[in-house]
Amino acid sequence: MKKRNIQVCMTPKLFSLYADKKSIVVVVDVLRATSSMCIAFEQGVKRMIPVSTVEEALEYRNSDEDYILAAERNGKPVKSFDFGNSPQVYLDMDVKGRTVVMTTTNGTKAINIAKKDHEVIVGSFLNLDAITQWLKEKDRDVIIFCAGWKDKFNLEDTLFAGALVSSLLETDLYNDSCDAAQAAKFLWDRSKDDLYGFLENSSHRNRLAKLNIDSDIHFCLKINQTKKIPVLKGDFLVIDDV
Amino acid sequence: MKKRNIQVCMTPKLFSLYADKKSIVVVVDVLRATSSMCIAFEQGVKRMIPVSTVEEALEYRNSDEDYILAAERNGKPVKSFDFGNSPQVYLDMDVKGRTVVMTTTNGTKAINIAKKDHEVIVGSFLNLDAITQWLKEKDRDVIIFCAGWKDKFNLEDTLFAGALVSSLLETDLYNDSCDAAQAAKFLWDRSKDDLYGFLENSSHRNRLAKLNIDSDIHFCLKINQTKKIPVLKGDFLVIDDV
Repeated sequence: MKKRNIQVCMTPKLFSLYADKKSIVVVVDVLRATSSMCIAFEQGVKRMIPVSTVEEALEYRNSDEDYILAAERNGKPVKSFDFGNSPQVYLDMDVKGRTVVMTTTNGTKAINIAKKDHEVIVGSFLNLDAITQWLKEKDRDVIIFCAGWKDKFNLEDTLFAGALVSSLLETDLYNDSCDAAQAAKFLWDRSKDDLYGFLENSSHRNRLAKLNIDSDIHFCLKINQTKKIPVLKGDFLVIDDV
Repeated sequence: MKKRNIQVCMTPKLFSLYADKKSIVVVVDVLRATSSMCIAFEQGVKRMIPVSTVEEALEYRNSDEDYILAAERNGKPVKSFDFGNSPQVYLDMDVKGRTVVMTTTNGTKAINIAKKDHEVIVGSFLNLDAITQWLKEKDRDVIIFCAGWKDKFNLEDTLFAGALVSSLLETDLYNDSCDAAQAAKFLWDRSKDDLYGFLENSSHRNRLAKLNIDSDIHFCLKINQTKKIPVLKGDFLVIDDV
């Protein structure tokens, strides 16, 4: 049986090189957009609308529906928005049945790039095993799409990519002929016993530490906290379970 | 004393994000363009002219000077050219005092992108220590620019980047706040005892193996075979020693 292909795209600027119009794309922005999305659904959010700009998000303010508006730029919540992109706010508030409109520096941008030609789901350490199980059921190639930081490579998204590559290879259904997938897997193997320590000098961990949101980092590096898979249907993220 | 910055740019498509108009850029295309350049100078070549297209290279054919014309595309020598980009041809022929015009799929393209705004030197495993010594003498930031494969990430150039990051950090003159530099260093640490084995599944090693040029791969992974540093002056690569 021909094995399915896994590619890892390390930043949005490279996505056009990996896009094949047929793979399922797993978008990841570990710190913190896609972690927030996974936990939002776990806490009962009904749907999310990932938009690329703050202006687009603001258009939802005067709507009939009572949207939660979430916006982050450069690691900080945008003024006048309900939420930034901290995952932990979803633990403190009753968000059951609500719709969240979200825009972030990197994650929502990546989703909107990928959705043009691909089926898109959202991954994070929080739903790693669930993603693996979900993908295993589909007979499709996979692109793991790291949101990076302003088009640059970042470590934390690449580590998640490595974790997912490793987990998919264990099913024996996939090959990893892509160099970026192999590199990501090696980095994951090296870091998995102490993800937080491995990221000690990473640029985004330091960026967030300066903003005093170290507890968000710990939260986003927890593995398998939810079985929810945010799946993009049109412009909406909705939930799929495994 | 403020430490110098090291950035690693993993593919040409990302170079504009790292370019700062002041760093020295070390271009690397381990398999095989920059390895060939280093060994060509070791064997007595006087200067090299890296050009981006086959057409540009051909313009040198009817010149008064007796150029050696070298061209590679997709791993193979281009028909009617004297050389492809195998480093080992420079060992078999007397090339003393000659000028080589070279165009390759990735390496010469990267040099020509970098030269617009930066001082450019050429690196490979063959001159790793020499490059480190040469850079140590300059009080400048460094961008290690991986030529990749057709704008995609590749493993072998990233391993060289990691080797050079590691070697520069040992001088205690540099910091590695760039995530890509940290990732490259981790990959190097993991692979340095068996580079050839580590690259076993890499896409370009397999591409070259199909072309029966496995001995070139072994050759390009040898460390410290020359002290020559190819330095770009205008359109010409010339030699600097340490």
